[in-house]
Amino acid sequence: MQKDDAFVPGLEGVIASETAISLLDTEQEQIIIRGHDLIDLSAQKTYADLVYLLLEGTLPSDAERQAVEETLKANYKVPDTVTDILQLLPKGTHPMDGQRTAISVSAGYDTTLDDRSLEANKKRAYDILGQLPAITVNSYRILNQMEPIDPDPTLPYSANFLYMITGKQPTALEASIFDRSLLLYSEHEMPNSTFTSRVIASTHSDMYGALTGAVASLKGDLHGGANEAVMTMLRDAESVDGFVHRLQEKLKRKEKIMGFGHRVYMKKMDPRALKMKESLKQLCDQQGDSLLLDMCEAGEELMAQEKGLYPNLDYYAAPVYWMLGVPIPLYTPIFFSSRTAGLCAHILEQHENNRLFRPRVKYTGERN
Amino acid sequence: MQKDDAFVPGLEGVIASETAISLLDTEQEQIIIRGHDLIDLSAQKTYADLVYLLLEGTLPSDAERQAVEETLKANYKVPDTVTDILQLLPKGTHPMDGQRTAISVSAGYDTTLDDRSLEANKKRAYDILGQLPAITVNSYRILNQMEPIDPDPTLPYSANFLYMITGKQPTALEASIFDRSLLLYSEHEMPNSTFTSRVIASTHSDMYGALTGAVASLKGDLHGGANEAVMTMLRDAESVDGFVHRLQEKLKRKEKIMGFGHRVYMKKMDPRALKMKESLKQLCDQQGDSLLLDMCEAGEELMAQEKGLYPNLDYYAAPVYWMLGVPIPLYTPIFFSSRTAGLCAHILEQHENNRLFRPRVKYTGERN
Ligand SMILES: CC(C)(COP(=O)(O)OP(=O)(O)OC[C@H]1O[C@@H](n2cnc3c(N)ncnc32)[C@H](O)[C@@H]1OP(=O)(O)O)[C@@H](O)C(=O)NCCC(=O)NCCS
Ligand SMILES: CC(C)(COP(=O)(O)OP(=O)(O)OC[C@H]1O[C@@H](n2cnc3c(N)ncnc32)[C@H](O)[C@@H]1OP(=O)(O)O)[C@@H](O)C(=O)NCCC(=O)NCCS
Repeated sequence: MQKDDAFVPGLEGVIASETAISLLDTEQEQIIIRGHDLIDLSAQKTYADLVYLLLEGTLPSDAERQAVEETLKANYKVPDTVTDILQLLPKGTHPMDGQRTAISVSAGYDTTLDDRSLEANKKRAYDILGQLPAITVNSYRILNQMEPIDPDPTLPYSANFLYMITGKQPTALEASIFDRSLLLYSEHEMPNSTFTSRVIASTHSDMYGALTGAVASLKGDLHGGANEAVMTMLRDAESVDGFVHRLQEKLKRKEKIMGFGHRVYMKKMDPRALKMKESLKQLCDQQGDSLLLDMCEAGEELMAQEKGLYPNLDYYAAPVYWMLGVPIPLYTPIFFSSRTAGLCAHILEQHENNRLFRPRVKYTGERN
Repeated sequence: MQKDDAFVPGLEGVIASETAISLLDTEQEQIIIRGHDLIDLSAQKTYADLVYLLLEGTLPSDAERQAVEETLKANYKVPDTVTDILQLLPKGTHPMDGQRTAISVSAGYDTTLDDRSLEANKKRAYDILGQLPAITVNSYRILNQMEPIDPDPTLPYSANFLYMITGKQPTALEASIFDRSLLLYSEHEMPNSTFTSRVIASTHSDMYGALTGAVASLKGDLHGGANEAVMTMLRDAESVDGFVHRLQEKLKRKEKIMGFGHRVYMKKMDPRALKMKESLKQLCDQQGDSLLLDMCEAGEELMAQEKGLYPNLDYYAAPVYWMLGVPIPLYTPIFFSSRTAGLCAHILEQHENNRLFRPRVKYTGERN
């Protein structure tokens, strides 16, 4: 056992798992996904490629990527009862909580729930990924008194996802920017939600349970919830000066600014954020309105000067989603949908080579 | 950061948290709960005392314990919609999954969901503990085509819980043995489900999310699910010889035997198991049938000889629940209900003194 004084709050720097899935290489400044640089992949590949890479271990051929698209589409349909249950949720329910409930309910439809084999787990992962656009969008729609929307199977997976979100056929640029956001969100080593999933899976619990825990984790504003918090700040600030002023006020009150900082790359900019910033520029050019980009850049500058802190992916994903017409309460549920590819890869890996997570504590209470 | 070679699978022996709630003191062989020895408490106190001790930090006076009982009873009522949703779940759904869904749904009814203050969190904990008997029993009943049952507020909290489970007024001995089982299950340092809750809570996510993750964790047979697995083995074996034979066969096949072993006290008997064994003896005497005790003792002896492994709490809780008339699929949900007292104490503590859990990995994949 470690000595008491080796206690590191938040397990910072502690190795929790062996994994062949991904690594944040802070020395070479790369996000490695099964051997590939995520930033390189984002220039050449689609989210469907990443799903295959994460679950199967290698990049797909064109035919294999096409097959992934088809498998996901074949799973678009969510059981009617899941939709009925979403209808019953109290109206103030957060879409993340709707998503969590829907995934929890889905376990009851899995006729091979007790089968933890790699094959059964993979099939389950594709099933769930196929259902997530409908679960995600319709839990938001239903909780906001809108009719559920049906997927359009003639569109690629991510174009359809964006179509379901906005109700409009996306342009090619919009579809590709949204796809890239999913790709960038798909996997990122051992953040809190991935860790949660592996901890749960290590009891031999099933994929639905592990994913339910991950939704709960991602909801927190220190994690996935940050993208919604960023956009709310930007929206409420309305102008560059207004935004800078708000950030300054928050810094004075010693509040954390959502969208900045990262446990692993604390002192430089998240490379994924750079990519999203490029997408934001493209959208600003297309729409002839650079306000959000100007606000974000001013915020970025201020935080670098005042705190030496740099944007993370959520900081630039937020205005991108805004310009794509995504309602704010869907930002974190979309992050979860995308990340499910990585989460499922980790759950598979945990079940294949398991040891129960069971750490110890440093007791600071009394002894009678 | 730790060096790669410091990787310990399952975080064995790694200190994950500071806590004033509990400690497994392996040197003095004590389970310390806020300064008190759990085994001593089990001789003198009730589950309601433990709820107070865990959430408030000290043992209650008689009046305070009475007030806890009243608070829990005042929260017995579950929103009708939660029951309606349970009615809609597919019939094969496991009661743990029903419980997980019900808790996930409950978040939508919390009008102060975004309030993470100690006060709001404590109130929430008592609300949830009050609702758990109905959530637990009725998700089982509904999923098995029975009418939901109403609590009997004239009975003490745990006597009512047992009454709802069996549909019969328990004898004083039965009520006190059931209460003791809840007390013994209420808190146990940093097992997987408690760890899951703290990891989730550390993103600033809410209590419902943290508890949803804990239900998922507890469901696994390496953790809470073990009590159900033990009883299924005992029931199917039918006789002492049959049981010993089954264990021998499993050992030959190098299978793990549920109910034996523990990460922390691997080489001696869980002191809680000893207490449950006493309860089992009492029930055997009362009912004039010692078969289950004889089977368990034979299994205990075999495992000590063959593997040097000793029973954990689940091993003796299982036959106790059987003799109390508890249906097997409720064993793990009851464990969760009881443990919610400890889980909530940990969530409170995490929110009061937080740092995001975000460990690292040892990457074993390729580099291109
Ligand atoms: C992501 C995050 C939780 C990782 O941080 P961590 O390793 O736990 O870092 P800590 O919270 O311990 O912060 C270390 C120091 O940096 C400061 N800091 C970190 N992130 C900050 C932020 N976003 N705004 C202001 N200060 C911040 C802390 O206040 C602390 O300062 P102190 O030492 O003077 O108290 C943290 O940067 C954060 O809360 N960011 C905002 C939420 C967010 O964007 N999350 C999405 C992450 S992808
Ligand atoms: C509780 C438990 C997960 C803790 O174990 P752990 O620290 O992860 O221990 P490991 O699984 O690494 O086991 C260590 C060794 O003991 C053996 N072992 C542990 N528990 C065993 C059991 N119940 N039956 C048979 N062998 C067991 C393992 O096979 C392993 O042997 P090996 O080194 O020859 O491979 C483990 O004892 C177990 O699986 N028990 C059964 C499930 C159970 O009762 N859970 C409830 C716990 S309260």
